[in-house]
Amino acid sequence: MQPATSQNLPEGFLEACAAILGPARVLTDAQARAPYEVDFWQAITGRAAAVLRPRTTEEVAAVVALAARHKVAVVPQGGNTGLVGGGIPDASGRQVVLSLSGLDRVRSVDPSGEWLIAEAGCTLAAVQAAAEAAGRLFPLSLGSEGTCQIGGNLAANAGGVNVIRYGMAKELVLGLEVVLADGRIWEGLRTLRKDNTGYDLKQLFLGSEGSLGIITAASLRLCARPRERVTVFAALPAPETAVSLLRHAKDRFAELISSFELMAGGCVDAAVAHLEGVRHPLETRAPWYVLAEFAWSLPEGLAAATEAWLGDALEAGLLLDATIAASEAQRAMLWRMREEMSPAMRREGKIIRNDISVPVGSIPELIARGEALLRSLVPDGRLLPFGHVGDGNLHFNILLPMAIQDLEPLRERVQHAVCDLVQALGGSISAEHGIGRLKQAELAERKSPIELELMRRVKQALDPDNILNPGVILAP
Amino acid sequence: MQPATSQNLPEGFLEACAAILGPARVLTDAQARAPYEVDFWQAITGRAAAVLRPRTTEEVAAVVALAARHKVAVVPQGGNTGLVGGGIPDASGRQVVLSLSGLDRVRSVDPSGEWLIAEAGCTLAAVQAAAEAAGRLFPLSLGSEGTCQIGGNLAANAGGVNVIRYGMAKELVLGLEVVLADGRIWEGLRTLRKDNTGYDLKQLFLGSEGSLGIITAASLRLCARPRERVTVFAALPAPETAVSLLRHAKDRFAELISSFELMAGGCVDAAVAHLEGVRHPLETRAPWYVLAEFAWSLPEGLAAATEAWLGDALEAGLLLDATIAASEAQRAMLWRMREEMSPAMRREGKIIRNDISVPVGSIPELIARGEALLRSLVPDGRLLPFGHVGDGNLHFNILLPMAIQDLEPLRERVQHAVCDLVQALGGSISAEHGIGRLKQAELAERKSPIELELMRRVKQALDPDNILNPGVILAP
Repeated sequence: MQPATSQNLPEGFLEACAAILGPARVLTDAQARAPYEVDFWQAITGRAAAVLRPRTTEEVAAVVALAARHKVAVVPQGGNTGLVGGGIPDASGRQVVLSLSGLDRVRSVDPSGEWLIAEAGCTLAAVQAAAEAAGRLFPLSLGSEGTCQIGGNLAANAGGVNVIRYGMAKELVLGLEVVLADGRIWEGLRTLRKDNTGYDLKQLFLGSEGSLGIITAASLRLCARPRERVTVFAALPAPETAVSLLRHAKDRFAELISSFELMAGGCVDAAVAHLEGVRHPLETRAPWYVLAEFAWSLPEGLAAATEAWLGDALEAGLLLDATIAASEAQRAMLWRMREEMSPAMRREGKIIRNDISVPVGSIPELIARGEALLRSLVPDGRLLPFGHVGDGNLHFNILLPMAIQDLEPLRERVQHAVCDLVQALGGSISAEHGIGRLKQAELAERKSPIELELMRRVKQALDPDNILNPGVILAP
Repeated sequence: MQPATSQNLPEGFLEACAAILGPARVLTDAQARAPYEVDFWQAITGRAAAVLRPRTTEEVAAVVALAARHKVAVVPQGGNTGLVGGGIPDASGRQVVLSLSGLDRVRSVDPSGEWLIAEAGCTLAAVQAAAEAAGRLFPLSLGSEGTCQIGGNLAANAGGVNVIRYGMAKELVLGLEVVLADGRIWEGLRTLRKDNTGYDLKQLFLGSEGSLGIITAASLRLCARPRERVTVFAALPAPETAVSLLRHAKDRFAELISSFELMAGGCVDAAVAHLEGVRHPLETRAPWYVLAEFAWSLPEGLAAATEAWLGDALEAGLLLDATIAASEAQRAMLWRMREEMSPAMRREGKIIRNDISVPVGSIPELIARGEALLRSLVPDGRLLPFGHVGDGNLHFNILLPMAIQDLEPLRERVQHAVCDLVQALGGSISAEHGIGRLKQAELAERKSPIELELMRRVKQALDPDNILNPGVILAP
C-alpha cells in the first residue's frame, strides 16, 4: 500500500474539488489512484496527489481555475494508452491527474457539412462509430482505438495506419474547445473549411500534450466512406523492395492508397503464433511483408486495377508473392494481425520500443544500420520493426529474452543510440507518439537552442505559472 | 512627387542597410518606393520610409536585427498580390518594406521524397514548374500564381481552386526557415511527413501575415501529378442546385474532386465579353454555372465515370446542361475564364470585394440574404459572386456603376453589413485572403476577447517590441 498523497495538496484544495465535482469524483485512495499512475505497458509510473474526474467542460474549467489559484500542477489524462508518459504524473505525489473520461458525448454530427463535434473523453472507436452511423468516415485509426480517447489523440497528434492518405490527427481538426491554464474556456469549435481570421489558435494546443491548454471538445472533419476497398498482403525479400513497391504503387494509385505498412517476418510469426484466429496469409515465407490498402468511393473497378498492379509488380521483381483479401473477414484478420502485433510480440519477450521516422528512401539504411547497432549493443536482441513505411515511420522494436533483468539502463542506452542514428539520417526521434516525460531529455539534447527557446516562450505565454502538465515536452 | 521619408528613420539606419545589402538594394526615392506602397487593385496605399531588397536569408536576418536594434518596424512584402493590405506599410512613412523578391531560388527538389525547398520570393508558378519538372504536382493554384510569391502565400495561408482536395497553403508545408523578430534565423526546414517532437513551431508563422516572423524558405509537400483529368462546365438554375450537385459529386468521386467552383451568370458574361479568346462554353444560358474538375493517377476510366455521373445528375434535375472539356485548350480556356473573372468584371464597373465563407449548406441563404441586403444598401449594385463553393468560400463581389464617386464610405458600410450577415450564418469574415490592415478593425470587433488576448500573448511572446508588420491582424 502506498502512503496517502493528499497531504501534499494545499489546505482546502480537495474539499473545493469535491464541492465542484462531488466527492465520488475526487480519488485520493492509493488503490483508486493506481490505474491512473501507470501507463498501458506498465513501463512508466508516477504518483498523483489525487485524481479528478469531471464530467463537463465547466467542471474542468472550475477545477483548473482552482488549481491555478493554488499553484497545483494538473496532468490531463485520456484513455491512458500513450507510450511516452504524457498523461502520467511525475513521482512527486504533488500533481493531480485530471481524467477526461467523463466528457464522453458526441455533441453533434453534420454528415452533409462533413463534421462532428466530440468531447475529449470519447474513445476513438466511438468517434469512428458516430461518423459511420452518419454515412461518413473518421479516418484516424490505430491499434488502441477502442480505448484511446480523442482528446488524447489530438493532444498527442496521433498518427496510425491511415496517415499516408488522411494525415495526422491534427490535420483532421476544424476547431477546438480548450480550458486554458487559468481555467477560462476558449470556445473555438469552428466547423468551417476555410477561416483565415488571425492566428490559428487551435494549432497551439494540437500536439502540445496538454501542456498549453486542456482540450475538452473538438470539431472533426469527416471524409467520404469508401465504397470499394482492396486489401493486399505481399511477401518481400528486403526493405529496399518495400520502398520500391511503395513508389510503384504511388505512381499508379497516388491518393487512393489508404495504408502501406511494412512488417518484419518475425512480427508476422509472433502474430500468427499468439493471436487467436490469425493464420499466415500466404504460403510463401519471407523476411518482410507489406500490408497495403487502396480505396475509393466509386462502386467498382479498384480490385481489377489492384490485380493488374500486383501482376506488374511481380513481373518487376518487387514482390515474391501476394494475396488480396477475398472477404471482409479476411481483411479483418489481416488488420488484427497488424494492430495486435505489439501485444503478440510481448508474449515472446521483453521489448524496447522506438517510434521514429526517417525520409522514406532512408528506411533500408535505417534498418541495416539498426541491425549493426543492435549486434554491438544487445547481441541477444532481435530487431523486429514494423510500421507505417508509407510515412517513413517505423516502430523500431527490439525483442529481448524474457529472462533479461533490469531492462531500464539497457533501454535508455539503446534508445539513445537509436536517436543518434535517426538524427544522422535526418529523421525524427518521435514520429507519432510524442515526447511526454520519456523523451523530454532526448528532446532537450537534440533540438536547437533557438527551438527550445521558442517553445519555452510559447509555454510562458500560455501557462506562465507552469500549471499544465509540467515536465512534459520541456523540463519543468 | 511625395516628400522624402528617409528622414523618418534613425540616424545611420539606412547607411547600415546599404552596407549589408549594397546601396542599389535600399530604395528611398519616392518613385522607386511607389510600387511597394500600393496594392494590386490600387485600393490600399501607404508610405514607406524605405524599401529594402535582400537576396539571401542572411541579409534578411541582418537587416531585421538592425531594425530590431533601432526599433524600426518592418513590413515584409512578396509579390504584392494580397487583397487586404498585409504587405503594404501604414501611412506613417516610418515603416520599412522588406521585399522578399530577391530570394527566388528553388534550393532542392526530391521527387521520390515528394518535397521541394523554395525560397520565399519564388513565384507560385515557379514552384509549380519545379514540381512539374520533377514529375510531381504542387497543387496550390490561384489567379495570381504568375506573380504571387510562395512566402506570401504561406504567410497569408492562401487558398485557391484546389483546396477542396489538397487543403490550404499551410497544409502543404513540411518545414520553414524563418527570420525572427530579433534577426535570428530559425532553421526548421524539415521534410518529414511525421515529426511529433514538441510544439509545431511552423504553425506560428503560417497564416500570421509576417507579424510573428519572416518566412524566408519553405519545404513543401509534392503530390502525384494526375494522369487523367476531367473538366466539367455545367449550367444550373439556382445556388441550391449547386450545393446538391456538389453533394451528388462528392458521393461518387469524393477525394477525386480537385475543384468545384460556382459562378453567377453575370461573372461568366463579363469574362466572355472582356477576355480575349474566351467564349461561352455552352449554348444554354443560365443564372449560375459550376466549373468542376476530377482527377486521378490511373491512366483512364475517369472520363467515362464523369459522363455517367453527368447523365445521372441531369436526370436528377441537378443541372440544366453541361459539357466536358474535349482538349487541353478547352480546359485552359475554362480555367482562364475563371481565373481572370475578377479583372474582366472590373472592366464593367467598380467592385466591392468580400472574401467570406459559410457552412456549405448555407451558401443559398447567404446569396438570398446578400441580394436583399444589396437592394437596401446599394440599389444600383449587382451581386456577382463566384468562388470555391466546395469549401463554402465565395468571393461575394458587388459590381457598381463605373461613374460612382467616393466609393470608400460605401465600401466600408457594405463590407460591414456583409460581415454581419456572415457572422449570423456562422461563417468567417476572411476565408482565404487574411486580415491584413483592411479587416483588422472588423476582426477586433468580432473575435471574442479571449481570442484577441491569446493572439496578443502569442505576438508578445514572439515579437515583444512589435517590430514585425505592426498593425496587421492586431491593432498596433
